[in-house]
Amino acid sequence: MRLHSLSPDVIEGLFIEGGISICVIGLGRIGLPTAVMFANGGARVYGADINDEVVRSVNEGNSKFMDEPGLNEMLSKVSQSGKLTATTDCAGAVASSDLILICVPTPVGATRSPDYSFIDAAARVVGRSMKKGSIIVVESTVGPGTVENLVGPVLESESGMKRTVDFGLAACPERSDPGTILRNMGTVPRVVGADTEGCAELVATIYETAFGVKVIRMSDAKSANAVKLTENLFRDVNIALANEFALLYEGLNIDSIEIINACASKWNFMPHYPGGGVGGPCLPSNSYYLIAEGMKEGNIPYLIRMAREINDRMPEHVVELIGDALNDVGKTIRNSKVAVLGVTYKPNVKDVQLTPVKRVCDRLVEMGARVDVYDPMYQGEDVMGFSGRANLMEAVSDADCVLIGTAHKEFKDLDLMSISRWVKTPAALVDSRNVVDPMSVARVGMAYRGVGRPAKTGPFVPVELETSGTPVWLDAARHPD
Amino acid sequence: MRLHSLSPDVIEGLFIEGGISICVIGLGRIGLPTAVMFANGGARVYGADINDEVVRSVNEGNSKFMDEPGLNEMLSKVSQSGKLTATTDCAGAVASSDLILICVPTPVGATRSPDYSFIDAAARVVGRSMKKGSIIVVESTVGPGTVENLVGPVLESESGMKRTVDFGLAACPERSDPGTILRNMGTVPRVVGADTEGCAELVATIYETAFGVKVIRMSDAKSANAVKLTENLFRDVNIALANEFALLYEGLNIDSIEIINACASKWNFMPHYPGGGVGGPCLPSNSYYLIAEGMKEGNIPYLIRMAREINDRMPEHVVELIGDALNDVGKTIRNSKVAVLGVTYKPNVKDVQLTPVKRVCDRLVEMGARVDVYDPMYQGEDVMGFSGRANLMEAVSDADCVLIGTAHKEFKDLDLMSISRWVKTPAALVDSRNVVDPMSVARVGMAYRGVGRPAKTGPFVPVELETSGTPVWLDAARHPD
Repeated sequence: MRLHSLSPDVIEGLFIEGGISICVIGLGRIGLPTAVMFANGGARVYGADINDEVVRSVNEGNSKFMDEPGLNEMLSKVSQSGKLTATTDCAGAVASSDLILICVPTPVGATRSPDYSFIDAAARVVGRSMKKGSIIVVESTVGPGTVENLVGPVLESESGMKRTVDFGLAACPERSDPGTILRNMGTVPRVVGADTEGCAELVATIYETAFGVKVIRMSDAKSANAVKLTENLFRDVNIALANEFALLYEGLNIDSIEIINACASKWNFMPHYPGGGVGGPCLPSNSYYLIAEGMKEGNIPYLIRMAREINDRMPEHVVELIGDALNDVGKTIRNSKVAVLGVTYKPNVKDVQLTPVKRVCDRLVEMGARVDVYDPMYQGEDVMGFSGRANLMEAVSDADCVLIGTAHKEFKDLDLMSISRWVKTPAALVDSRNVVDPMSVARVGMAYRGVGRPAKTGPFVPVELETSGTPVWLDAARHPD
Repeated sequence: MRLHSLSPDVIEGLFIEGGISICVIGLGRIGLPTAVMFANGGARVYGADINDEVVRSVNEGNSKFMDEPGLNEMLSKVSQSGKLTATTDCAGAVASSDLILICVPTPVGATRSPDYSFIDAAARVVGRSMKKGSIIVVESTVGPGTVENLVGPVLESESGMKRTVDFGLAACPERSDPGTILRNMGTVPRVVGADTEGCAELVATIYETAFGVKVIRMSDAKSANAVKLTENLFRDVNIALANEFALLYEGLNIDSIEIINACASKWNFMPHYPGGGVGGPCLPSNSYYLIAEGMKEGNIPYLIRMAREINDRMPEHVVELIGDALNDVGKTIRNSKVAVLGVTYKPNVKDVQLTPVKRVCDRLVEMGARVDVYDPMYQGEDVMGFSGRANLMEAVSDADCVLIGTAHKEFKDLDLMSISRWVKTPAALVDSRNVVDPMSVARVGMAYRGVGRPAKTGPFVPVELETSGTPVWLDAARHPD
């Protein structure tokens, strides 16, 4: 079927009736929900992945390898109805489809240059197997120009076909956040750019129909990709700015959290909070896609690069805070037991991709500490080379220092009084995610450090537990000039 | 009167009845509106300034030296009612007042270090003349710690009195934007920090009563000052980020404005736009107050400093764009006439403090161009060493290049067709504020460059005026890969 000869109305009707076949290449954190949403919208979807286990699990209607709210229910539905079939036969799936979505990972290599090998491999299979009139959409996050200058030429040379004439090529980067992917897919507008306006219009119509969202038509594919990078780098740079303020304000004995919350009362301020680093599949890598494209033009984006370096250094700062807090209670990192509460890169999401907490743990072990991990997402499971404790008490027992690594909702109401009884007194608590109230920690007799919190709290004076009122040294700490 | 022995209710009543005397030191862009607002709220206000002319003008009920919506009306009212008196006798005004506000400028010196000489001078006068029980509030923007470590000690040594015991000291930085100062003062919450909680509470009560706004109580003065710097640097850094994207995307032939507008459809993105630089009394200086405090602690805020350098370089980039655009029509900057439309640092505000447009003009003159200036705020007046033209036509006539320097509302609907007839064809238009549509410029036969707009527009082909439809080369320019 030559989709681009059809009008939007006809496309919409066809889609809903299941007359459009879609191949989703890569059933990962974005690919699988995308496949499921398209199938749920009415299309006949083939999901292709190189991993047998993933394919089997999807065909059983179960996304056990991925923890995403609402996904399992929808997957089980479209799997039973036969709308979604997973396969390792990517070529076959491509050959049977009108629309081919590339949702493979785009990691960053050891030298911090983009690794487009998965994109390249996917494009080769597609080129060899696609039929005339196919439309290829790149959903993966890539540097602007990658769709035009890498994917396009590979498709042409492998297929012997000509783009815009024999097949269409578009970029429609996903804009969802892990933990809220299905909700985001159904509400956040998409951006589409293609080789021709007709192709962009067609892809836009299909996404509008499948997801019920607004689709913004961009001038071309590279502009669509630039949108995705720009919005993610806005976050990365602003988190780096919050971290820079945090480091400055620690030294000036100012509470960054108090500052940021007050700033938020101005109309043109958007709050971002400091923390122990930035992880996940997107933010730590996205800068390098844009830096690579800029460098080709002799343009170095200094601010974006500097932001990355600041965020990358935060785990080291967390280790410094742990050292300082332990020092306050007369202990060293060497020979201390550190209980790490939370290891995922994001609260309430079971994902440790590039989590900054791993760097903290590794460094602590290197320095001679014993690390015990508790994460509600990995109870009793192995994670990052540690065996996750079954509960908080097990991890915290006999700890010299407690580190809050992730702001899981379970940690919002930590029972500090119990923790202070389980630890090996005198002990310290370091909060890398500003989850607990510094005063409450001091009140249970533990030394405290937090990212962006005043560092000069004066000499640590252990207080008796359950004394009434605020210890004297805490009052002093508020105005220590 | 010892204000701090009184309860908030009594303070409020006293204030409204005019029982509280206030001295405002510095009748500039912030001091004058502040004095007027306090007088309008009920207080007896003395405005002190070293400039005779300003004092005379204020006493005549006229703010002719300052262009701020609504100010003149309110000034004339409080001046006639005798609630506000201006004077050059600062010592006398201080001696007669319960509350003393320091609203003097805090510029940055030639070496980019903060120049606190006005603050220091004001503190000396206040110290010598204030009565016991006075409360001193620093409204000027200063680095965190300046109130505690500079103003406090000067007041103590000059007065022989002791802070917190004999007088109160607070920071309440203004948070208003030129052009909307009165509106901001009546709506944007204030932040107050002081030596003691009692003093902060008292100052907060007075501001709440006078301005009818929420007042956020901060831990101390340095935290209040940190809020002001943090929110302003958030803007400076984000504008720098927009400028960094602009430079990158120009090279990649991507339209930054299209990208930013699309990004704005995501919930966690806040749009900032690129432009020809950042001016005014705040943003270009504020970074250096914080950098100076950080350096004292051995902490260099790299991101903030880098942002400043990017924004500082933008006027040079505007000159590059002018050179490129003139080159497209076969001309050089040398011997060309450049008509500069708009010179103020902000749209619709009569203020050229640190305006980046001056740097563009100076560089153009240095390179041998003839510069003609038109700014609706300075019609026929001398500005920045140029004599402002009375109207747009005078400035544009025979120009080889038109530069849009400020996004005044008058320029939103520029009559490009007329401009294209007045200029010396072939001519160019450079838009440093993304005011005009690039296509429309091309349609009237002028070469175009804009900050953050695709630079590779292909060879310039002058088109006949008033042809119908879009010239062919413009279509090509949209997909020039």
